[in-house]
Amino acid sequence: METPGYDLTGLVIGSEGTFALVTEITVRLLRLPEDVRTLLAIYDSLEDATDSVVDITARGIIPAACEMLDGWTLRAVEAYVHAGFPLDSAAVLLIEVEGVRQAAEAQAAEISEVCLRHHAREVRRARDARERALLWKGRKEAFGAVGRVSPSYYVLDGVIPRTKLTPTLLRIEEIAKRYAFVIGNIFHAGDGNLHPLILFDHRDPDQFQRARAAGADIMQLCVEMGGTLTGEHGVGMEKNELMPLMFNETDLDLMRKVRAAFNPVGRLNPGKVLPLGKGCGETRLRPFPLSASGKA
Amino acid sequence: METPGYDLTGLVIGSEGTFALVTEITVRLLRLPEDVRTLLAIYDSLEDATDSVVDITARGIIPAACEMLDGWTLRAVEAYVHAGFPLDSAAVLLIEVEGVRQAAEAQAAEISEVCLRHHAREVRRARDARERALLWKGRKEAFGAVGRVSPSYYVLDGVIPRTKLTPTLLRIEEIAKRYAFVIGNIFHAGDGNLHPLILFDHRDPDQFQRARAAGADIMQLCVEMGGTLTGEHGVGMEKNELMPLMFNETDLDLMRKVRAAFNPVGRLNPGKVLPLGKGCGETRLRPFPLSASGKA
Repeated sequence: METPGYDLTGLVIGSEGTFALVTEITVRLLRLPEDVRTLLAIYDSLEDATDSVVDITARGIIPAACEMLDGWTLRAVEAYVHAGFPLDSAAVLLIEVEGVRQAAEAQAAEISEVCLRHHAREVRRARDARERALLWKGRKEAFGAVGRVSPSYYVLDGVIPRTKLTPTLLRIEEIAKRYAFVIGNIFHAGDGNLHPLILFDHRDPDQFQRARAAGADIMQLCVEMGGTLTGEHGVGMEKNELMPLMFNETDLDLMRKVRAAFNPVGRLNPGKVLPLGKGCGETRLRPFPLSASGKA
Repeated sequence: METPGYDLTGLVIGSEGTFALVTEITVRLLRLPEDVRTLLAIYDSLEDATDSVVDITARGIIPAACEMLDGWTLRAVEAYVHAGFPLDSAAVLLIEVEGVRQAAEAQAAEISEVCLRHHAREVRRARDARERALLWKGRKEAFGAVGRVSPSYYVLDGVIPRTKLTPTLLRIEEIAKRYAFVIGNIFHAGDGNLHPLILFDHRDPDQFQRARAAGADIMQLCVEMGGTLTGEHGVGMEKNELMPLMFNETDLDLMRKVRAAFNPVGRLNPGKVLPLGKGCGETRLRPFPLSASGKA
C-alpha cells in the first residue's frame, strides 16, 4: 500500500546504507504460482540465443527467469555440476514460466517454438522437480564452477536493453581480446542484466590492473548501449567514480543534498555510491582488494 | 530500467509538484493483453459483495479492475446511464480479468463461482465490446450521475486493507447517520481504494462545515483500519493537516528536509502535502471552496 507524502521507502531502497539503518522490514507474501515450466534451449550460435530472448520478450511473454550461459561458462559449469549441458554448444538458455496451468503451458509451447525457429539445436523440458532442480543447479553453482578453473575472477554487473544483447556480447569479446583475458558470460538475459566474468590472477599486479580497466570498459559499454552501471549489486565503492558516465554534476549534487537530509555528517557508509571529493565529510577509503570469492 | 544511485524518479512521483517541474516523461508501453473478460456481479447485501472481493484476492487472483458501487450509487447511476443495474440490488461488482485467453477464461470462471458462493443474485458476462462498454459506462459516468441528484458532493479518497472492507463500510454508514448526510460509496474494491461521496449543499455554511468534518472522520477511520489518507488523488491542501494521523514529527521533519534539497525557498506548490507552520517559507493559503464538479 502506498503511503501519502514523499516516497521515503522507495528512496531508502537502493541507497546502499548511506541514508539510514533499517531495523524492520514488512514484506507482502505472494502465493506461489499454480504451475511452473522449466526449459533448456541449446544453441550452436550465441547470436541465435540472444535473438531468441529478444523475440520471446517482443511477444509480450515475460518469463519468470531467462538465464543465459555462454559456451565457455557452460563448459566450466558442466565439468563441475553435470547438469547435461552439451559441451560443444555455444550457449544455453534456461527459461522458466509460471502462472495458471493453462497459461504456463501455452507460454512454454510458444517459447519452444520461438527457440527452434531461431535454430536452437534442441529444447528440453524438465519433466519433474528433480530435473528442474538439476537445470537450476547448473545456473546457481556457475560462480563456484568458475572459481575452480581460475585463481580469481571479477564479476561485473551491468544492464543493457535486451535488444542490444547481441552487439554488446560481440563488443565484450573484443574487450577480452584487447586485454588478453577470458571473459565468460552468464546473465539474466530476460532483464538485460549481464554478469561478465573476467578471469585473472590477483597475485599478478599487472593482471589486477588490467582486470579493473577491462571492467571499466565493459561498464562504459553498457552505458553507451543505453543501459546502466548496475542491475542488482549496487554501486558501492567499486563504481562510484563511474557515476559521471550516467549523471551530470547537477544530478549528482541533487543526490548529495538528498543524502545530506538523512545523513548530514557522512557517517553512514562513507565513500559509497557517489563520487568522492565533494562535501558530506567523506574520507577517501581504499577499495578492498578483489578476491576470488563472488556470488551473483 | 532502474538507474544506479538514489531513486529520484520514484521520489518525484507523488511529490505533487513540490520538488520540480517535470518537463519530459519517458514511459514504457506494454502490449495489450490477448484477452479480457468483464463480469457484473449483483448482490442483495453489501457484505456479500465485499466478502466476494476478499475471497477473490485471497485466491491469488488479481483482477485488472474490481469496482464496487453500493445501492444508493448504483440507483443514481442507473437513472442516468441505463447500464442495466437492477434498482433493488444492494451492491454491484464490476470485475475485469485479462491475460492469455485460457488464463482469462479460467479466472473469469473462478470469479463467477466465488461470487455465486457469496450469494450473488446473478453474475453477468459482457458478451461483446458493446456490452463491455456499457458496463464500464456505468462506472465511468458515476460521478456525473451523482452530480445530477445533489447540489454538491465531496469525493473522498482513502485506502484500507481489502480484508477490512465490510467493517469500514458499516462505520461509514454510522458517520453518514451522525452527520445526517447521504454518503454513497463507489470504489476500486480490488485495491481497497474507497471513494465515499458525501452529498451536501455548498450554499449552506453549516452543511459545508459538516461535510468537511464528516470527510475528516472518514479519513481518520481509514487510518485506524490500517490504511492511508489517499489512494490516487494525493494530499494537496485538503489533507496536509491530517498527515500527523500517519506520521510523527520526526518523519515529517525528514520529509521537509528532503523537500528542501529540491525546493529550498518553497516556491513550488507552497502549502501542499506537508502540514503548515514549519520552515520552507510557506504562506497559509486559503483552500479552494469545494465544488460540485469532481472526477475520480
